[in-house]
Amino acid sequence: MAKIGIGVDVGGTSVKLGMFTRTGNLIKKWEIPTDRENNCANVLPDVAASIRKTLEEEGFSTEDLVGVGLGVPGPVQPTGYVEVCVNLHWKDRYPGRELSELLDGVRVEAGNDANVAALGEAWKGGGGGAADAVLFTLGTGVGGGVIVNGKIITGKHGLGGELGHMHVRDEETEYCNCGGRGCLEQVASATGIVREAKRILKKSSAESKMRELGDLLTARDVCDLGRDGDLLADEVMETVSRYLGLAISHVEMTVDPDVFIIGGGVSRAGSYLLEKVRKYYNDYTTLSRNHGNVVLAALGNDAGIYGAVRLVMKKAEESKG
Amino acid sequence: MAKIGIGVDVGGTSVKLGMFTRTGNLIKKWEIPTDRENNCANVLPDVAASIRKTLEEEGFSTEDLVGVGLGVPGPVQPTGYVEVCVNLHWKDRYPGRELSELLDGVRVEAGNDANVAALGEAWKGGGGGAADAVLFTLGTGVGGGVIVNGKIITGKHGLGGELGHMHVRDEETEYCNCGGRGCLEQVASATGIVREAKRILKKSSAESKMRELGDLLTARDVCDLGRDGDLLADEVMETVSRYLGLAISHVEMTVDPDVFIIGGGVSRAGSYLLEKVRKYYNDYTTLSRNHGNVVLAALGNDAGIYGAVRLVMKKAEESKG
Repeated sequence: MAKIGIGVDVGGTSVKLGMFTRTGNLIKKWEIPTDRENNCANVLPDVAASIRKTLEEEGFSTEDLVGVGLGVPGPVQPTGYVEVCVNLHWKDRYPGRELSELLDGVRVEAGNDANVAALGEAWKGGGGGAADAVLFTLGTGVGGGVIVNGKIITGKHGLGGELGHMHVRDEETEYCNCGGRGCLEQVASATGIVREAKRILKKSSAESKMRELGDLLTARDVCDLGRDGDLLADEVMETVSRYLGLAISHVEMTVDPDVFIIGGGVSRAGSYLLEKVRKYYNDYTTLSRNHGNVVLAALGNDAGIYGAVRLVMKKAEESKG
Repeated sequence: MAKIGIGVDVGGTSVKLGMFTRTGNLIKKWEIPTDRENNCANVLPDVAASIRKTLEEEGFSTEDLVGVGLGVPGPVQPTGYVEVCVNLHWKDRYPGRELSELLDGVRVEAGNDANVAALGEAWKGGGGGAADAVLFTLGTGVGGGVIVNGKIITGKHGLGGELGHMHVRDEETEYCNCGGRGCLEQVASATGIVREAKRILKKSSAESKMRELGDLLTARDVCDLGRDGDLLADEVMETVSRYLGLAISHVEMTVDPDVFIIGGGVSRAGSYLLEKVRKYYNDYTTLSRNHGNVVLAALGNDAGIYGAVRLVMKKAEESKG
């Protein structure tokens, strides 16, 4: 009888894989490089071969699989169709169906990587098993994922959970990659934090260790310096936290989850960031003091493999009825 | 065999009732006054008696009922528990269970009236049967309802769909009833529109028919005058539409429904309002031109009875599995 699941998280430089029990215990995790030749045409065959090899090593076969969950860096329609996956140069494909064919017809469910990570964090990470959770991933950009009743809300046009492109800042003068002005991503991503720091340094003549770092300044530096008492760096993080708290309050008044989870590289700032974000979120959510909590992500780069396996396990349960 | 359903929409001055076929065809609708004596203690017995009387008149009995849906003006927890229903002075009750006991144990499902109206509009109103729809009700206040996969999102703390209390306006100086400043309700409710108009009249010396109306000015007047070319009134409606379009874009990036539905008294402004709202919503949603449409509500005051009957019919279907 089928007893294990595989979670796959396809990235532009490497593919992360994990083998799990039904209850979500990680048996083994490993990585393979993303073969970028021929518009990443070998990625799925490589994944299939690697899964077969690891199954064999551990004494399993594809018959022992409940299924394989697949996170891909692009929008996935409910049918499994991927119109375009920019980072992988994929176009007009059904990656889940293709991987299934490469694995003796085993069940494969594909989802967008940010959404799948949200499912993983809700299940086994910061969400601690919450059925309703929302993830904000603060990395180079700002991604997101909205989970209601244990299911990813992808939306009718693939915009569900695109939290980085909420318009939060009217006075923004530069354009976001999406063509808008004032997106959350422009201020709360790692890139946005550095930009904000440079703006403040230009405007103010106050002393700050950020100045000495010049063009080498990273979001990590801004967070670290802010926590260590650098006033200008702290001011940057106040601005970042205000807009993030505002965006969280918008989502709260829409779906009101159990928990909001802050992940991505910027979340390494930890409780220093968390306390600021909670303060502004509370300020913007006056209707009731009783609202969704804000916590830090707990799975790091493993959120994708956890979420991918959850995706396929849940579908398998549902189809059994 | 059970074949019909009853939708009940309890308001502070009257209770609306409707008798429906399984497919949502309205057989009959009627109203009874809300008896406000003894903290509205007689409301549910009155509703039960009225349902029994109408069933008998139409040749049915409680045995013919699939169930009764009940919309109440306050938060209803998933268990059916109502901690407080301010307008009716109800406290610490299970109105669904009580009504069921008064009707020979027939299935009764209770929900918040704004959420239930959203379900009605999604099913048989502006949503045209959409599984995913979001209603903004622009009345004395601004209410809302979020429907995903045909189900109301009430949220974990009752804040799901509280769209009127999204913070959209930083420069607001007055306080909202919720204690916040800059809520959507403060600008897009009927009350908010009049307030905005009075602000503009004070600030500007330009000619406007709004001035002649003085303290009699209503939101309806502002909409009508704006449509008829009064420049200041049109400016008010631009401001209102901008914030409403912004709030819609926030919800779009969170749950991305098929359709946004604008209801409530203010929505009588029709396409004049709709076009403005769509313009700002598009401006704030640059990530993709392909996003949820915005339409006008179609059921008026009947949205509640349609939604209530849908609520109980759907639960009955689900429990049959």
